[in-house]
Amino acid sequence: MLTFFTPGPAALYPTFEKHLQTFVSNQLGSISHRSQQYRDLHKFTVDQLRTLLNVPDTHAILFLGSASEAWERILFSCVELESFHLVNGSFSKKFYDYSNALNKYAHKQEKSMGEGFTASEVVVPEYAELICTTHNETSSGVQMNVAEIHKLKQKNPDKLIAVDMVSSAPYPDLDYKLIDTAFFSIQKAFGLPAGLGVWIVNEKCLKKAETIRQQYSIGAHNDLPTLWKNSLTNETPATPNVMAIYLLGKIAEDLNTIGVKTIRKETEQKAALLYKFIEKQSGYSLFVKEKSQRSQTVIVTNTELPSADIIKAVKEKGMVIGSGYGQFKNSQLRIANFPATSVAQVEELISVLGAL
Amino acid sequence: MLTFFTPGPAALYPTFEKHLQTFVSNQLGSISHRSQQYRDLHKFTVDQLRTLLNVPDTHAILFLGSASEAWERILFSCVELESFHLVNGSFSKKFYDYSNALNKYAHKQEKSMGEGFTASEVVVPEYAELICTTHNETSSGVQMNVAEIHKLKQKNPDKLIAVDMVSSAPYPDLDYKLIDTAFFSIQKAFGLPAGLGVWIVNEKCLKKAETIRQQYSIGAHNDLPTLWKNSLTNETPATPNVMAIYLLGKIAEDLNTIGVKTIRKETEQKAALLYKFIEKQSGYSLFVKEKSQRSQTVIVTNTELPSADIIKAVKEKGMVIGSGYGQFKNSQLRIANFPATSVAQVEELISVLGAL
Repeated sequence: MLTFFTPGPAALYPTFEKHLQTFVSNQLGSISHRSQQYRDLHKFTVDQLRTLLNVPDTHAILFLGSASEAWERILFSCVELESFHLVNGSFSKKFYDYSNALNKYAHKQEKSMGEGFTASEVVVPEYAELICTTHNETSSGVQMNVAEIHKLKQKNPDKLIAVDMVSSAPYPDLDYKLIDTAFFSIQKAFGLPAGLGVWIVNEKCLKKAETIRQQYSIGAHNDLPTLWKNSLTNETPATPNVMAIYLLGKIAEDLNTIGVKTIRKETEQKAALLYKFIEKQSGYSLFVKEKSQRSQTVIVTNTELPSADIIKAVKEKGMVIGSGYGQFKNSQLRIANFPATSVAQVEELISVLGAL
Repeated sequence: MLTFFTPGPAALYPTFEKHLQTFVSNQLGSISHRSQQYRDLHKFTVDQLRTLLNVPDTHAILFLGSASEAWERILFSCVELESFHLVNGSFSKKFYDYSNALNKYAHKQEKSMGEGFTASEVVVPEYAELICTTHNETSSGVQMNVAEIHKLKQKNPDKLIAVDMVSSAPYPDLDYKLIDTAFFSIQKAFGLPAGLGVWIVNEKCLKKAETIRQQYSIGAHNDLPTLWKNSLTNETPATPNVMAIYLLGKIAEDLNTIGVKTIRKETEQKAALLYKFIEKQSGYSLFVKEKSQRSQTVIVTNTELPSADIIKAVKEKGMVIGSGYGQFKNSQLRIANFPATSVAQVEELISVLGAL
């Protein structure tokens, strides 16, 4: 069996197989999505996520096909004319591209890959309706600190703010009094197979969508007002991915049993081990120069050797690590640091890398 | 264990658990969607579907989050201004509603639930760019015969035609020389948990999308040109539901081993048993009057007793059947007739219903 340290699809959470077996044994793949049995299952997952991520009742927790779909649905719902994007890698850039593809006027403030943003340096255009931030840029291993995201909203209280936390949730401790919408997918830190996006969104976004709809299309499939209305009875507009929603609820319950504070502490502990290794080991160097902007969940290192050689050698020892992204494919490694992998497994990876 | 005769989510295909176990054992939930291993898996599924549904190379086979998403993507890609819909139930109506929600001008020709369309009676508006048909109306158990769909295209060769076969594929033997686009979901006749839509689409639709894009948005997420381009290398734009794509390929392979002709013949044989029972049994009567328009995959019967009572009594015998849809919830039953349930199981259901 291989241990995956890839940034998504990633290692499956240790209890995944057990929960999958329960799903199969209870024939949950065949239940009606309009039955009380489904509504109870749906509510369980939403409740567990609310606890884990500390999401108040002002926000709905909705299910989509993927986090990429969330980009589109947020732009449809929250932007009549103009959006604003902090772009510092491939995924924040895609959020920006989506806005253009919807014929919105998309502003951006851009930095090179490996660099991050602080609230004080961000200049939000006057007519931008939505500020799009990326808590964790999966392509470069840069994080925007939660405190900076909060400050950005405090400086721009009249604008909506969105947080892409695809490859970091449940790590970021967002204050939903300040965050209008956020989203993630389940094949990263939740350790599940891909196929579900989770969209957290408040009533301000709903009202905005209802206003925009009077003049522009806000999409037809999974539009916010319809999703919201269905969520009130723990349902979805169309047949959802019941299997993924069930498994997500059970994994969230497991994480709640451990406690999100412990999860976050362990994440930081494992990240510290990896960063320390990169700093001291010859042949490796840190890509993200600013320490406070180094991701806790996707650790990126430059490599002197072609990274493909390292990936191959590590795989022979039973571990899978990720290549760099795009132009850095063969000169960097990306090592996921999600709850599914233990401190012991990270130590083993470090020992293998050190012995190459 | 319950036997599900519900119209979706439906009974899981008998080999589902075996394939799921292989997926888990081979750790396919963690593989990169940009790896050769994934591309081989993707290609396997596409190839098996091509064989099963006789889809030529002129058409791409693409993956979406659900069939409902396909409604939206087809309208974005194939309709600049005006669409035309044959509406005779809740799902054909939703296709029409989606067009309005995208601010297209949606024309419709409407019939009551339980009634169907023939090509000769359809009047296609002059400026409609796309004709939207529903092969199998899941809400009412009405099918539009494949020959009538083909005729409709032959009479309107300059228009694009779309076929919703959500709750019938692989039953309809479509001639893709005449069909521009068609789609289905996997939680119906393919006997899998929900979470994937399959979109079959030809180059004419692609060209149309590229033309529309010069002036209007064709969506941002899973837009046709991007999906198409990615499919050329057996990839998807975003991380796909790898589990569902894998399982679909294996089930399609199993169906190919049996042979689609045999599958279709067995479907007709089981449907005939059910319709014969409904006709002769007191307390039951056929909802769809026109024999040739009776669905082979979702059998609908009126009931004299409240259908909830029958559903409850049948469940005590270990079988689950569907209620009527919408206004017919308590006066009809919907019985799915998909490949996952055998002739023997259908005979058992009939015997239980007959003994109530």
